[in-house]
Amino acid sequence: MHIDEIDTPAVLIDMDRVEANLARAQAYADANGLPLRPHVKTHKLPEMALKQVALGAVGITCQKLGEAEAMADGGLTDIFLPYNILGAAKLDRLAALNDRVTLAVTADSAETVAGYAARFGKDAPLKVLVECDTGAGRCGVQTAGQAVALARQIAAAPGLIFGGLMTYPPKGGVARADAWLKEAKTALEAAGLPPETISSGGTPDLMKAAEGSVTTEYRPGTYIYSDRMQVALGHGTLDDCALTVKATVVSRPTGDRAVLDTGSKALAADPAPAPMRGHGHIVEYPDAIVQALSEEHAVVDLSACDARPRVGETVRVIPNHACVVTNLHDRVYLIRGDQVEREARITSRGKLQ
Amino acid sequence: MHIDEIDTPAVLIDMDRVEANLARAQAYADANGLPLRPHVKTHKLPEMALKQVALGAVGITCQKLGEAEAMADGGLTDIFLPYNILGAAKLDRLAALNDRVTLAVTADSAETVAGYAARFGKDAPLKVLVECDTGAGRCGVQTAGQAVALARQIAAAPGLIFGGLMTYPPKGGVARADAWLKEAKTALEAAGLPPETISSGGTPDLMKAAEGSVTTEYRPGTYIYSDRMQVALGHGTLDDCALTVKATVVSRPTGDRAVLDTGSKALAADPAPAPMRGHGHIVEYPDAIVQALSEEHAVVDLSACDARPRVGETVRVIPNHACVVTNLHDRVYLIRGDQVEREARITSRGKLQ
Repeated sequence: MHIDEIDTPAVLIDMDRVEANLARAQAYADANGLPLRPHVKTHKLPEMALKQVALGAVGITCQKLGEAEAMADGGLTDIFLPYNILGAAKLDRLAALNDRVTLAVTADSAETVAGYAARFGKDAPLKVLVECDTGAGRCGVQTAGQAVALARQIAAAPGLIFGGLMTYPPKGGVARADAWLKEAKTALEAAGLPPETISSGGTPDLMKAAEGSVTTEYRPGTYIYSDRMQVALGHGTLDDCALTVKATVVSRPTGDRAVLDTGSKALAADPAPAPMRGHGHIVEYPDAIVQALSEEHAVVDLSACDARPRVGETVRVIPNHACVVTNLHDRVYLIRGDQVEREARITSRGKLQ
Repeated sequence: MHIDEIDTPAVLIDMDRVEANLARAQAYADANGLPLRPHVKTHKLPEMALKQVALGAVGITCQKLGEAEAMADGGLTDIFLPYNILGAAKLDRLAALNDRVTLAVTADSAETVAGYAARFGKDAPLKVLVECDTGAGRCGVQTAGQAVALARQIAAAPGLIFGGLMTYPPKGGVARADAWLKEAKTALEAAGLPPETISSGGTPDLMKAAEGSVTTEYRPGTYIYSDRMQVALGHGTLDDCALTVKATVVSRPTGDRAVLDTGSKALAADPAPAPMRGHGHIVEYPDAIVQALSEEHAVVDLSACDARPRVGETVRVIPNHACVVTNLHDRVYLIRGDQVEREARITSRGKLQ
């Protein structure tokens, strides 16, 4: 099938770009001895995850239990779930998943560790890493001392194994994260609890992740597809972006305005990464600005464009943030050039729990 | 089942509030002789649409063909689809739908009308309204003269019926929209094409929609659930909001910070409506600010709160924009007080085409 036959809006994945993006990252990882454990949130497709593992990834990362279950169903066997899993229902599901695959989770509080400790026994123990807030200001213990205290609580539980440290570094703060983790590593060694794994992540810093770092494992996500945000942060160019949203021009109300059939429901509303503007890059009209999204429409400012599209014409839009686009669509089209290889259902889309 | 038994994140719909919101709007519409044609994008549930019709709505509004098909499957029989439907695949689906239900669509260009005219015949004609840009700056003809020209093109096609005018008024611009529509109505009457229907919409202006307006039909959407945006625009209060996202506090990394398991994948990233702040209102902690969303986490600033939640505690969050939340979830829980009536699958979620 030719891509012209795909109705809109629809997500197209350029497989040549996917393979180039994966190969480039894996080559860097191999050259620097830094194992990759890709975050699957960007594609949410077991087949892409299997491709990442076949290239050399040591396993995958999922952010939600439901995503991890879907990936296990899809044949993935080594899963890191860096999340505080709380509550009886989720702990039961976690125990079932721990019986099926090689699994590790995180904790950043005594309450979370206590929940794991009460649910898991030494016959089928759970590996737990301590999440560290190295400056990003989300979850995570705040000090090396807190990391040691939590590691001790984990190590003391018969059904838990202390697996090391995990962080998501602050934007532009890899050195800061590294210093934080070094201090915690030293403190853990002094406490007799050397961390087996020190896990960091983020596509923007992927190609320098091995530089003088204590990181033993790296979790890039968006690198497989890339997007405007990654390009704005210095990771590759727009020509590396593998995910586009195919759209139709449904209206040309004025000479300077076009309206596409891709609103926030198809393109996601994440703001433009500076210095870029608008809600996406229109490949065929690079000077156009996607200036506003409502749920079902994108309003495009054509005032800087020489050529302008007609009603009914289709275009392809590189989104600001690929991962959130994936989460809005039930299927994607895998393409090579202008040919569709096939349609893939996004089996772990919308797995919120 | 008690709502405490629902795992998180999950969407809860307070049916007492739904019924009060619907009754209030329908009473206004009945008292003012203004037929309602609710937009189903807010709930995407045929059962809610049937409830709206049972209360007196003359039909429903859908924004995408796929949503309209799902609503027809759910038993709805009178559907307005205010969208430029383009392309052979969608026109075939439109013809099939036109055979099943009472249907009307819109057009704002000669190209769109030409597509309809080529596909529909006089044995099963399609009703077409002209979409008017009365200031909102999305789709729509720009002048009364353009409206007349398009109405003439529609009326001249053997398989099309000119149905009137449709607009989505600009924010705070009901008077401006009304003046625009009045001028177009006069021009159409002079051309021998009096508009049968003049359709306007929007929850913010719902309770004054009948004031001196040429509008003959009104399309409110969000009024069924309401949300922070509607409250900020003056429609009701937070106590009218029927949709909440149940969340768990998964981390308390610092004294002033909590992290919920509801990121942009569960709560949507629409910005706060001024003068409100943050990505939602936490019912139990009204002074908390949901200051940042990543995909799977909401970071909450507790610095203004006296009482503060513990890890594992659940809360309910009123989102900024209810409609986009509905589109992220596969199911919602219909509740009365603290009891779950049942779970409903969102059958028209993600219908992008």
